[in-house]
Amino acid sequence: MNVAFQGERGSYSEEAGRTFFGADFKPIPLGTFAGVYEAVESGQADRGIVPIENSLVGSIHQNYDLLLKHHLKIVGEQDLRIEHNLIGHSGCKLEDITEAHSHPVALGQCQEYLAKHEKLVPQVSYDTAGAVKLVKENNLKHAGAIAGRFAAELYGMEILAKSIQDERDNHTRFLVLSKDVAEYSENAKTSIVFALKNLPGVLFKALSVFALRDLDLTKIESRPLRKKMWQYYFYLDFVGHIEDEAAKNAIGHLREITTFLKILGSYPPSARDSD
Amino acid sequence: MNVAFQGERGSYSEEAGRTFFGADFKPIPLGTFAGVYEAVESGQADRGIVPIENSLVGSIHQNYDLLLKHHLKIVGEQDLRIEHNLIGHSGCKLEDITEAHSHPVALGQCQEYLAKHEKLVPQVSYDTAGAVKLVKENNLKHAGAIAGRFAAELYGMEILAKSIQDERDNHTRFLVLSKDVAEYSENAKTSIVFALKNLPGVLFKALSVFALRDLDLTKIESRPLRKKMWQYYFYLDFVGHIEDEAAKNAIGHLREITTFLKILGSYPPSARDSD
Repeated sequence: MNVAFQGERGSYSEEAGRTFFGADFKPIPLGTFAGVYEAVESGQADRGIVPIENSLVGSIHQNYDLLLKHHLKIVGEQDLRIEHNLIGHSGCKLEDITEAHSHPVALGQCQEYLAKHEKLVPQVSYDTAGAVKLVKENNLKHAGAIAGRFAAELYGMEILAKSIQDERDNHTRFLVLSKDVAEYSENAKTSIVFALKNLPGVLFKALSVFALRDLDLTKIESRPLRKKMWQYYFYLDFVGHIEDEAAKNAIGHLREITTFLKILGSYPPSARDSD
Repeated sequence: MNVAFQGERGSYSEEAGRTFFGADFKPIPLGTFAGVYEAVESGQADRGIVPIENSLVGSIHQNYDLLLKHHLKIVGEQDLRIEHNLIGHSGCKLEDITEAHSHPVALGQCQEYLAKHEKLVPQVSYDTAGAVKLVKENNLKHAGAIAGRFAAELYGMEILAKSIQDERDNHTRFLVLSKDVAEYSENAKTSIVFALKNLPGVLFKALSVFALRDLDLTKIESRPLRKKMWQYYFYLDFVGHIEDEAAKNAIGHLREITTFLKILGSYPPSARDSD
């Protein structure tokens, strides 16, 4: 299974992909999220895997935008605990490291550690694993990279400081994307995006289509529509498969009051990654 | 009015504060968001102003966490259009600039511009306006900072490239915080955070307490509770003042099915900043 992801080899997306696919996983690292969608659409990759939500920073809106723009289906999800480490050349000592290279989000999630270690000057990299690669390939003995354990292993580097993120409980949910819908599964959840007509109590009416059919929600988020204040996209996940009678009826009912609705896919839910 | 905000003088938070308070505004720049809450609680500042939601990156969860931890009230909000510029010393030419200093989020929002201008090496700064100050005070003639127009004015620097953010439609909503509740206003909105009991269709029931009283929602967001998968905090804004009969009854009704509920404040809504 050729799986496209954003970032260098060893990224958190690759780690999520390896956890999801196991031995079948063949990595296709790409530069951008948009590239991942294009690779799956063109057939260059069988599947794509992208982060959609982090417990600390919330939804990754860019991937919701790309899900709307492209015609792929969500066929699975993978929860991954994010544990940032300071990684350097083996034999280097922590006290000799004066630079910490990483992606801006990872640097932001290690702010307390970096504040305590003033000698470590943060350096922006386009990618966490890419930062490890950079430190490795340029033989930067005074530099470290902030990335996952898997990146250290892959590049033959050493963890100089383990689990340096500010918040222990840091999880990212990844979506697995395909050109075709997933096989039917009993315990599926379904992700949709919609916009509502301007009617009194319309969000309540929208949620009633699920409640009236005993379909539980696992996520709801309103996002202001660009250029149109007071109008929203809603991201919603509910427990049930889109082929189930109740879900079909709920979606039919919902269409009566939406100006826009897109079904992103039905797929088996992920177990939570162990802490 | 002494107003605390996170960042150096000239930050977007200061710009939002100046827009909100006008001539009354006296800046108290602080290093951290937590510091802003502490300054208002201790009386060092009369008000605080913090970003809560950006149209591109979503909610700033750190500020929701701090709203839960501290005992301040939201007394106002301010929408601000975010326009990033490349700022340098006056007389410098764009083609001589080889570094772009800024906050990681601002660097991330100018990715396309930075990709097109490979010569500009991104450099992490703790703050957008702080990056302008750094370039100014260290007399870095080969460096630019990515920040707002107001920071350029304040430090007597020049805009070398205007409006370089990837997305034109980039708005941030700021909250104004105080120890005391706002004066009553007719057209108020109210922000609350709550967690729900584990009951069938409980989110539907929660929203019904507003719908049954014709109280419109302007924001709803579910956020996974730390350590407890499948449990959520809900951030919700509704149109109405907490002292209104309908709102009081809705909150009383909501308490029947919540395990936790905090009223963050009732305040007049902001007009959208012009584009």
